[in-house]
Amino acid sequence: MRMRRKKYLDERLAACDEVNLGWLTDRAAELRGQTQQRTLDVRGIFDNDAPIHLEIGCGKGAFIVQAAKREPDVNFIAVEMSRNVIVAAMELAMKERLPNLRFLMGNAEYLEKFFPPRSVERIYLNFSCPFPKNSYAKHRLTHPKFLEIYRRILVPGGEIHQKTDNMHFFEFSIESFSECGYKLKNISLDLHNSGFEGNITTEYEAKFIEQGAAIYRLEAKI
Amino acid sequence: MRMRRKKYLDERLAACDEVNLGWLTDRAAELRGQTQQRTLDVRGIFDNDAPIHLEIGCGKGAFIVQAAKREPDVNFIAVEMSRNVIVAAMELAMKERLPNLRFLMGNAEYLEKFFPPRSVERIYLNFSCPFPKNSYAKHRLTHPKFLEIYRRILVPGGEIHQKTDNMHFFEFSIESFSECGYKLKNISLDLHNSGFEGNITTEYEAKFIEQGAAIYRLEAKI
Repeated sequence: MRMRRKKYLDERLAACDEVNLGWLTDRAAELRGQTQQRTLDVRGIFDNDAPIHLEIGCGKGAFIVQAAKREPDVNFIAVEMSRNVIVAAMELAMKERLPNLRFLMGNAEYLEKFFPPRSVERIYLNFSCPFPKNSYAKHRLTHPKFLEIYRRILVPGGEIHQKTDNMHFFEFSIESFSECGYKLKNISLDLHNSGFEGNITTEYEAKFIEQGAAIYRLEAKI
Repeated sequence: MRMRRKKYLDERLAACDEVNLGWLTDRAAELRGQTQQRTLDVRGIFDNDAPIHLEIGCGKGAFIVQAAKREPDVNFIAVEMSRNVIVAAMELAMKERLPNLRFLMGNAEYLEKFFPPRSVERIYLNFSCPFPKNSYAKHRLTHPKFLEIYRRILVPGGEIHQKTDNMHFFEFSIESFSECGYKLKNISLDLHNSGFEGNITTEYEAKFIEQGAAIYRLEAKI
């Protein structure tokens, strides 16, 4: 059963080859082979040099596909650890035929293997796993460990846009951004009663709004 | 009627002379007369050189009186604009006979007329007026205009502890502290369900908790 399921997943992924940039780490090895002074070849990927917006943890892709449709003049790259999950996002993107959206598989700790310094204009963190236990704090995508990585791949003035439904994760995130010297702006402690316009509501988010839970949002600028 | 009421207030204030340091601005003039190089004469006020904690907007004094009772090794000074309000705080302090608590009348924009640079270890902002209209943002006690004043009178590593029940004021405050380079820590978006210990609940706060409203709290460090 396990083998058959894996084979089926491989086939689905193969069918999305057009939008799949592969594994963060494999891609890194490939790039190392090509050139000493590595630079992200945006032209090679997107046929243009529009700014790059990156979503870390794209899940099944509802957010990034809508974002790519709404902003055709931005190049979107979505990263996700789980092949079982990202395949659904890739299939959705294939169906929508979006020239400005690509996917990378892997863990955010390897972002620098793919993205050179100052190459990304914006990073989206949408409903990242809050890892509620403190002993897992290092896995939170707003841990200073990750914020330092983001800082290096972001352009000067680059931004991180975060949304979450988890209050303690949001408290942790504010402290973490502050510790790492990011400037916080457009903070919302109840996004859907804030008058904020242009929000892309993810499936996960919609479920929480229905339950009457507050959605927290911030922008952090370097 | 107005004259009689004022006379009565003057009498009440006169009875609190022992704990009343006077007006921020008058005191400034007095100090200017005394010495060229002004320094806060803590010994002259408190007979010791324990650290100074300052509350801005002490209202009727419930918080600062409890704080002064709980921490006898700290000197507390409470500032309040309204004479009609601060007189109640002074009377409470007189009744409690606290050697480590004094009061100043006046607006926070004149703090530097009394407090020399690096003289205050901690500032408390408890349920300051949120001034909800944006056109009044400059009056909010966490406006960058005030945060720059606080920064100058705080010692290196000094802290501001803020509590409020107003969500938008708290959002504004986080952004403002961040803009001015303070480091944020111990953020709580629901203080009374956070496990935070040692909170002094003000009367105003108690009313809000009863209504089930969230209390927001942060610490900002320079």
